[in-house]
Amino acid sequence: MRRFVIAVLLLASSLLWAALPAAASPKIERIKTPLGIEVWFVREPSIPILSLQATWRGGSSSEPAGQEGLAQLATGLLNEGAGDLSADDFQIALQESAVDMGFSTERDYTTATIRTLTVNRARAFDLLKLALTAPRFDDEPVQRVKAQARVAYERSRTSPNALVGERFAQLAYGDHPYGRRSAPSTESLERIDRAALAGFTTSLLARSNLVIGAVGDVAPEDLARLVDTSFGSLPMQASVTLPVPVVPKTAAQPVVIPFPNPQSILLFGAPGIAREDPDWYAATVLNQVLGGGGMTSRLFEEVREKRGLVYSVGTQLAPYKAAALVSGSLATSNAQVGDALKLVRAELARVAKEGVTDRELAAAKSYMTGSFPLRLNSNAAIAGMLVAIQNTGLPPDYIDAYPGLINSVTQDDIRRVAERLFARNDYLVVVVGQPAGLETPASGKQGG
Amino acid sequence: MRRFVIAVLLLASSLLWAALPAAASPKIERIKTPLGIEVWFVREPSIPILSLQATWRGGSSSEPAGQEGLAQLATGLLNEGAGDLSADDFQIALQESAVDMGFSTERDYTTATIRTLTVNRARAFDLLKLALTAPRFDDEPVQRVKAQARVAYERSRTSPNALVGERFAQLAYGDHPYGRRSAPSTESLERIDRAALAGFTTSLLARSNLVIGAVGDVAPEDLARLVDTSFGSLPMQASVTLPVPVVPKTAAQPVVIPFPNPQSILLFGAPGIAREDPDWYAATVLNQVLGGGGMTSRLFEEVREKRGLVYSVGTQLAPYKAAALVSGSLATSNAQVGDALKLVRAELARVAKEGVTDRELAAAKSYMTGSFPLRLNSNAAIAGMLVAIQNTGLPPDYIDAYPGLINSVTQDDIRRVAERLFARNDYLVVVVGQPAGLETPASGKQGG
Repeated sequence: MRRFVIAVLLLASSLLWAALPAAASPKIERIKTPLGIEVWFVREPSIPILSLQATWRGGSSSEPAGQEGLAQLATGLLNEGAGDLSADDFQIALQESAVDMGFSTERDYTTATIRTLTVNRARAFDLLKLALTAPRFDDEPVQRVKAQARVAYERSRTSPNALVGERFAQLAYGDHPYGRRSAPSTESLERIDRAALAGFTTSLLARSNLVIGAVGDVAPEDLARLVDTSFGSLPMQASVTLPVPVVPKTAAQPVVIPFPNPQSILLFGAPGIAREDPDWYAATVLNQVLGGGGMTSRLFEEVREKRGLVYSVGTQLAPYKAAALVSGSLATSNAQVGDALKLVRAELARVAKEGVTDRELAAAKSYMTGSFPLRLNSNAAIAGMLVAIQNTGLPPDYIDAYPGLINSVTQDDIRRVAERLFARNDYLVVVVGQPAGLETPASGKQGG
Repeated sequence: MRRFVIAVLLLASSLLWAALPAAASPKIERIKTPLGIEVWFVREPSIPILSLQATWRGGSSSEPAGQEGLAQLATGLLNEGAGDLSADDFQIALQESAVDMGFSTERDYTTATIRTLTVNRARAFDLLKLALTAPRFDDEPVQRVKAQARVAYERSRTSPNALVGERFAQLAYGDHPYGRRSAPSTESLERIDRAALAGFTTSLLARSNLVIGAVGDVAPEDLARLVDTSFGSLPMQASVTLPVPVVPKTAAQPVVIPFPNPQSILLFGAPGIAREDPDWYAATVLNQVLGGGGMTSRLFEEVREKRGLVYSVGTQLAPYKAAALVSGSLATSNAQVGDALKLVRAELARVAKEGVTDRELAAAKSYMTGSFPLRLNSNAAIAGMLVAIQNTGLPPDYIDAYPGLINSVTQDDIRRVAERLFARNDYLVVVVGQPAGLETPASGKQGG
């Protein structure tokens, strides 16, 4: 009965998706500021708010070895005191003008976001300039943020998710910067001082590696002036170190991190496909069918729905700039780890050999093109999309072009990319738990 | 120097706020469906998405004694299997159509939210109907959700924030439903079975206590049909029990819950002001000045900035339907609890006697009216506002009227409401930690 219901649902939802009209996509203007900074902009007059996102190429993979977490600490401290303003005073200034300003970092990029009522935009961008060009790294906020990081590190020592991700990165990337933690450890915190924090931000926050997207209710020339205020006095050239390209390592045997838990978490991965690769779109459609579609994906259907072997299972494409990865994860009871992994391996081998059905291909295309508007659901989301498009080297009409790029993926494309990604049996596999049924697992130590 | 900088900032930000133009406010349509259900609606054609929020009067305060957490469990299970669909199948159906559907509950209201691409709206509202009228409460999801609740309960036994809130409610409300936990405990979980879950939702989810707001790109008559589909077959009359009005208790002495932590968390409170009270708007302006404005409020300035006595301090108005409360909280090192509380008491007494300065009043009004558009920053936020306006018995032009309501608050209003709320010294005070310097504290036990 349940299978029948699902078949009916699939049919029903395919029919619904097929009725999708063309969505109105935002009109992107490319602005060059008086100081020569490029900004991609969508004017949105319906609400008196301006949202801006900026990214700099460079992030945790630009940290010196031994100073893991430097990027996270440094960016987290940018709005904790700058110029004449102490940490409290800076936060008070933001609150008085109802400005949201935040910074974050990951392996390849560091991001600033700001959201302000248009009426307060001058003040907001003055404060952003202070944060970017004159962060203070005063002792009080530095010690406070370090103390929080110490607590987070201690907690992560008992988090299976943190442990499995860390070990996976170590084994996949070895001594490469991608192999290190991106959050601080007790040891790295001792090596990160004020000079390191200031030096890192100075080397990173420049104009050569800067990309900006903005959405809101301002005139383009007004936005240009604001951008020059905040970003115009940054150094022209970034001096941050970017990691060299590397191929993720694979392994003949699973690695186990013993952990006293009734369930296991398992990560697997192999070399993936770069964002700039001509087969990228085919790979995203394949991933949607195989394991990227949540509970609607083939792996979920085969491994959980039909055989009840896992709580969750999925795959993802991770196109890191220096090492594209295709990876997957599953969570299951310790007793079922071996059976679940065997079945996942069999499904990956099957898709490498047979590809996907016409029906699966059509459903994935329909879902991906139809649900795209949900990714443009707020001004902040659109600003983020403008930045992502630029960082990928795509043209401004990408949003309009996306459905065509997806719909033009053929079964030949899928077969080619499936074989490229999944015709292998040497996935790097890391398990945290007390798994049973693994093929002669290599032993691993806990922690790191 | 720092004081000077802040004064300049205050001036600067006042000037900026003063330049605020009138924001375009959303145009609200009141729709009556063919089956007679009222919906407040804002048509928003810029993106092909429909967001709807519905609330029912009744929530955790409608639970029978001994079944604490029933409302939370029941609503959390509504999208975990309904009609012919198991928990997995229901979630798969949502994912296939990219529908977000969620339920939550608090003391006075239970809320459903749904967000769908307009192209999938028929399917989305069919699924919502299933969740509301035919939830299954199958054994698998019930046991799974109960297991999660058990873990959350155990964790909360070592959370100072959870412990202080619980004890405060017990002491303020005694045997009244507001005095109970709203999350399940190990004991209450044993008393909540399928019959209790089904009985509770049947008594709650009706038309007599239903209010709906929606925002999106659909025609009003189309929305009316969708609403009738999902809500039209609910029982006309809710049979849920609503709590009787009660006045929060106060206390002569602080109550301490000993807890091995270097810092203490302190809650204080007293009878507040109802949302329908003519002095409500004056109270919100007063609260903004005193302790509701985050780091820009008077308490923060006096207790932290000037004397460094706390990490954080603030106040809030909580207009619960059966017992309005004014409350505040602070976090500080154990050694400074006594001094911090003395200073907070002195500031509350001072505002009761002297009110606020003209400058504070103007700054609060400017901030509250100027930042209002940030509360309408997404379609979901606007849908929530439409529901809140109806639940408060306000007219559809409330959003336009809000600046006038705030700006018409006079110093006389502020003095009257300040005396009403803060001319007392018998606040109920509860501290979790190892506080020093409290006036002969009454002893309290941990847990509950």
